[in-house]
Amino acid sequence: MFDLETYLASKQKIITNWFDDYFSQISSSGRVAEAMLYAVAAGGKRVRPVLCLAAAEALGGSQHGALYAACALEMIHTYSLIHDDLPAMDNDRLRRGKPTTHIRYDEATAILAGDALLTLAFQVLSDPLYIAGDMDGVRKSLGIINTIAAAAGHEGMVQGQMLDMLSEGTVLGIEDLRNLHQKKTGALIEASVVTGALLGDAEAAEIKALKQYGAYLGLAFQVADDLLNITGDPQKMGKSVGTDAERNKNTYPSVLGLAESRQFAVELVEKALQAIEAFDKKAHPLRAIARYVIERNR
Amino acid sequence: MFDLETYLASKQKIITNWFDDYFSQISSSGRVAEAMLYAVAAGGKRVRPVLCLAAAEALGGSQHGALYAACALEMIHTYSLIHDDLPAMDNDRLRRGKPTTHIRYDEATAILAGDALLTLAFQVLSDPLYIAGDMDGVRKSLGIINTIAAAAGHEGMVQGQMLDMLSEGTVLGIEDLRNLHQKKTGALIEASVVTGALLGDAEAAEIKALKQYGAYLGLAFQVADDLLNITGDPQKMGKSVGTDAERNKNTYPSVLGLAESRQFAVELVEKALQAIEAFDKKAHPLRAIARYVIERNR
Repeated sequence: MFDLETYLASKQKIITNWFDDYFSQISSSGRVAEAMLYAVAAGGKRVRPVLCLAAAEALGGSQHGALYAACALEMIHTYSLIHDDLPAMDNDRLRRGKPTTHIRYDEATAILAGDALLTLAFQVLSDPLYIAGDMDGVRKSLGIINTIAAAAGHEGMVQGQMLDMLSEGTVLGIEDLRNLHQKKTGALIEASVVTGALLGDAEAAEIKALKQYGAYLGLAFQVADDLLNITGDPQKMGKSVGTDAERNKNTYPSVLGLAESRQFAVELVEKALQAIEAFDKKAHPLRAIARYVIERNR
Repeated sequence: MFDLETYLASKQKIITNWFDDYFSQISSSGRVAEAMLYAVAAGGKRVRPVLCLAAAEALGGSQHGALYAACALEMIHTYSLIHDDLPAMDNDRLRRGKPTTHIRYDEATAILAGDALLTLAFQVLSDPLYIAGDMDGVRKSLGIINTIAAAAGHEGMVQGQMLDMLSEGTVLGIEDLRNLHQKKTGALIEASVVTGALLGDAEAAEIKALKQYGAYLGLAFQVADDLLNITGDPQKMGKSVGTDAERNKNTYPSVLGLAESRQFAVELVEKALQAIEAFDKKAHPLRAIARYVIERNR
């Protein structure tokens, strides 16, 4: 029997160890490196790197070969959290139960630590230490860098955050809300799955299927996040709830209502599962993660 | 006769055109893209991209083949200016004679535009549109991404900015000041020259020479910048002078004195020129740029 909790705990440990190792080698870099590690070590669910590893495994690829890219994805996610939490953005003082980076350090250090994590992601993704030196390995790495940069940038995650801020206090329709979330959360989650697929040497049809899985999962994840912001337990989540409503944020529950949002999340997970129907049991972790998205309570 | 002014004007135009073309294709991205272009279009001397193009040309490489990388370097430089100007950092309201990005838009947009420019640099550097698809082209591109990321990140430019902020109000010795500036300004200038060298198919000895040229030039550039902050004409420079002294920043003039700083800049340029002595007349632009660094008045 496949046990997701054991699986997640084991992956989360491997990811945390990678970061500890990496930062122990560069500890001489002082305050910025310290703040980078502080933000990365705060943990969280590690959804993106776990998805990257699980996608690589679904194709029979080795976890070892995808770990550096998984951690680069987590760096990009972490940088986005650091910057989103800044006073000029969402002005959050607490994240994962700990003071946010600009509270623990200061704003300037938080801005720089975010910048440095984003940059380090691309440094790691292009590091010959982690990349097979043959034509296939080198070409794949460039493709991964391009995929991740496109997902994280002004047409993806960054634009999503901008749209999110611009839409505060206005009322979005369901299509605009979907577009916002596809960019803000979906794009990097999709890119995480695709990165794992590429490192697992997926064929074109497999990449297409996993990309679709990632797209549905990313959206489901956001709908579930919106629901947890209303119905979640702040103790378990390590962050405040009810903040979306306070800020007049557009969320799925605010547009669709609670019950219909739950139904929507269930349908999205169904579609994610359908997309990878043709995969064998090596894709069980991906299936379990999809179900977990709507069952989680933090 | 080689005329640097004509050379710089022609390169600056090519670079500006590239940005205009690129952003005209993505204008649908709204506010973030608008702010990115605003910051990039503000212009400036384009030192880094020009150095990249000039280094490629010094080896007989085509300007066309290095342009995308030159512009990626300018994106990284521009992102660093946007973030450095923020209230939490240097709190500058004017840059190149125009309101800084957070003044023209707002802080959140400026943070996001900086993030997006940094990300776009890596998207462009890994874009198959610009990269020769053979083993050599692909491998070179990965090397360039790694070089630039290392120079821009927590061991390079970002750390330099952190050290700069941490040292305000304290008195640095000459070695610490040199380390600060090598990171804050030198690293990306050196990487710009190395990127051009790689795209110009330099051999190992040529890369070493150009890297050395870049390192001396980068430091000379910073010393000259420090001097201009004291003796420059705010009209010509499009920014305030005397700001370093107001903030108790550590600068070469504050540590070495004016006359000795000028002498130091001259010596650094001499060393930069010596490093590329063996190059033929195709390196004349690099030589002229080195001399220009200490002769410029803006």
